[in-house]
Amino acid sequence: MIPLDGVTIQEVGPRDGLQIEQRWVPTGEKIALVNAIADSGIKRIEVSSFVSPKAIPSLKDASEVFAGIKRRPNTIYSALVPNTKGAERAIDAKADELNFVMSASETHNFANMGMTREQSFLELGSVVAIANGASINVNATIATAFGCPFEGPQLTSKITDTIKRYFDLGATSITLADTTGMANPVQVTTLVELSLALVSPNDLTLHFHNTRGLGLINVDAAFRSGARRFDSSLGGLGGCPFAPGASGNVCTEDLVNFFHEIDVPTGINLRELLRLSAELPKLVGHETPGQLAKAGLASDLHPQPNIKRSA
Amino acid sequence: MIPLDGVTIQEVGPRDGLQIEQRWVPTGEKIALVNAIADSGIKRIEVSSFVSPKAIPSLKDASEVFAGIKRRPNTIYSALVPNTKGAERAIDAKADELNFVMSASETHNFANMGMTREQSFLELGSVVAIANGASINVNATIATAFGCPFEGPQLTSKITDTIKRYFDLGATSITLADTTGMANPVQVTTLVELSLALVSPNDLTLHFHNTRGLGLINVDAAFRSGARRFDSSLGGLGGCPFAPGASGNVCTEDLVNFFHEIDVPTGINLRELLRLSAELPKLVGHETPGQLAKAGLASDLHPQPNIKRSA
Repeated sequence: MIPLDGVTIQEVGPRDGLQIEQRWVPTGEKIALVNAIADSGIKRIEVSSFVSPKAIPSLKDASEVFAGIKRRPNTIYSALVPNTKGAERAIDAKADELNFVMSASETHNFANMGMTREQSFLELGSVVAIANGASINVNATIATAFGCPFEGPQLTSKITDTIKRYFDLGATSITLADTTGMANPVQVTTLVELSLALVSPNDLTLHFHNTRGLGLINVDAAFRSGARRFDSSLGGLGGCPFAPGASGNVCTEDLVNFFHEIDVPTGINLRELLRLSAELPKLVGHETPGQLAKAGLASDLHPQPNIKRSA
Repeated sequence: MIPLDGVTIQEVGPRDGLQIEQRWVPTGEKIALVNAIADSGIKRIEVSSFVSPKAIPSLKDASEVFAGIKRRPNTIYSALVPNTKGAERAIDAKADELNFVMSASETHNFANMGMTREQSFLELGSVVAIANGASINVNATIATAFGCPFEGPQLTSKITDTIKRYFDLGATSITLADTTGMANPVQVTTLVELSLALVSPNDLTLHFHNTRGLGLINVDAAFRSGARRFDSSLGGLGGCPFAPGASGNVCTEDLVNFFHEIDVPTGINLRELLRLSAELPKLVGHETPGQLAKAGLASDLHPQPNIKRSA
């Protein structure tokens, strides 16, 4: 059941990363970034978000980005949508998959989506109907699944009940998202084990942020519990609205390196990712939190020094 | 055998962190830092290094720092020493324990210590003799135990043979150090399991760097393999001479938070560490890599927003 031969990594930098950036990234550069990410071997990319341009002006060119990207074969270009209107726009833009997002926490859902959870569930029903009409799948994300910055921990039963309701409403795959980096590996193990009783590993994505330095450790805990799909962002782009300066999503190249180091294949060209990541500071106007891009691969050795130091 | 009731964290920031800093940290501020670290509940602190002031000018005041610190009861103030001369100075300074360091890799040992490994083993013998005369213990560290930046991976048998030789020469405890952040969790699991066949968990310390973002994941792997003692540095101070801008040691407050999140006691006041960490950028003149100091505790909730966003 569990695909032991590797993991699937979905790049969310163009969406979850760029949405928080202050500097406007021109549409052409967003398109080039998505194309380069796909060229590195990443088979799933969350390209943009069809939300109100007032709420997230940095992604107001979602349709243009979708129109401009090259479509590689066997690569899924998905779009985040919070509601019916977003789904219609995403389908017009020829997104391959919709990622519907709502929160486990009522408070966070209202703050983030401007709706109650019940309203969001209704929207999901409509989003699925629209997607079915276009013959594409809907992934449904549970934001704040590992804790809400306003409410704190969420009941485990609320998460599993939400998964069941997502499937009842027609979603075909699920993401558990640690939206503000509150997860810990014990909790991750519990939630992944419970989720995998309801979802196949191929249909469950774990979305972690490195806000408190636990991003990779949570990936590892999820992986050891059977999870095989992970979101991450190139350079660790992203952030947390409550913690200026805090790290964003788990960094794609750090994540790929982790899996390669433990001999788990990803199908991704890590050197190509490092090359791309090195260009990000120019694109966004600041250093990025990823570690590997600064340090290089452990397997790239340094020349033997010929100085003799007395200690 | 394994003390399941908690972990011991040794703060190495005043030594491994400050040694690489360009800005001179005045002796009084080093003393204040060590005192504050001890006040936070950390029971083991590597205070400084008795090496050539030419090699590491930033720690040339090691004796003065030892002379100035307050000695809390049940707290061990240790000193790094690479040789006999260093041991004599450290004992004069009233260090509670000596941490003798040499490398697994011949090339790294020569570059770092100016000696062959055989010369270093001879030095260890003398260091133990001097320490025994002063009735203090010698911890012996294997630097580059998880890989050398010049030679690459080191044979596992070389590490276990070195541990045996350390004990034969009179060391009472061992540190495995991932000097330039090359370790991965599979390798850590193997080496910790093999080491714990030779060393009790109370006498084995794991020293990881976060150079490639795998610091905490390696701690976790070691912990799950039975290791119970870890080195770390406040704010994640430290670095790697081969990777400017790369992260340093595993960050103490991130590490303590990790253990507290998974319900493993440390005996350390995390809020006090966060307060100390927040002062570090002033001390060293740059931002530090630790995550938690930027994000705050996950359990510290944010006020519920009263804005209604349309998404």
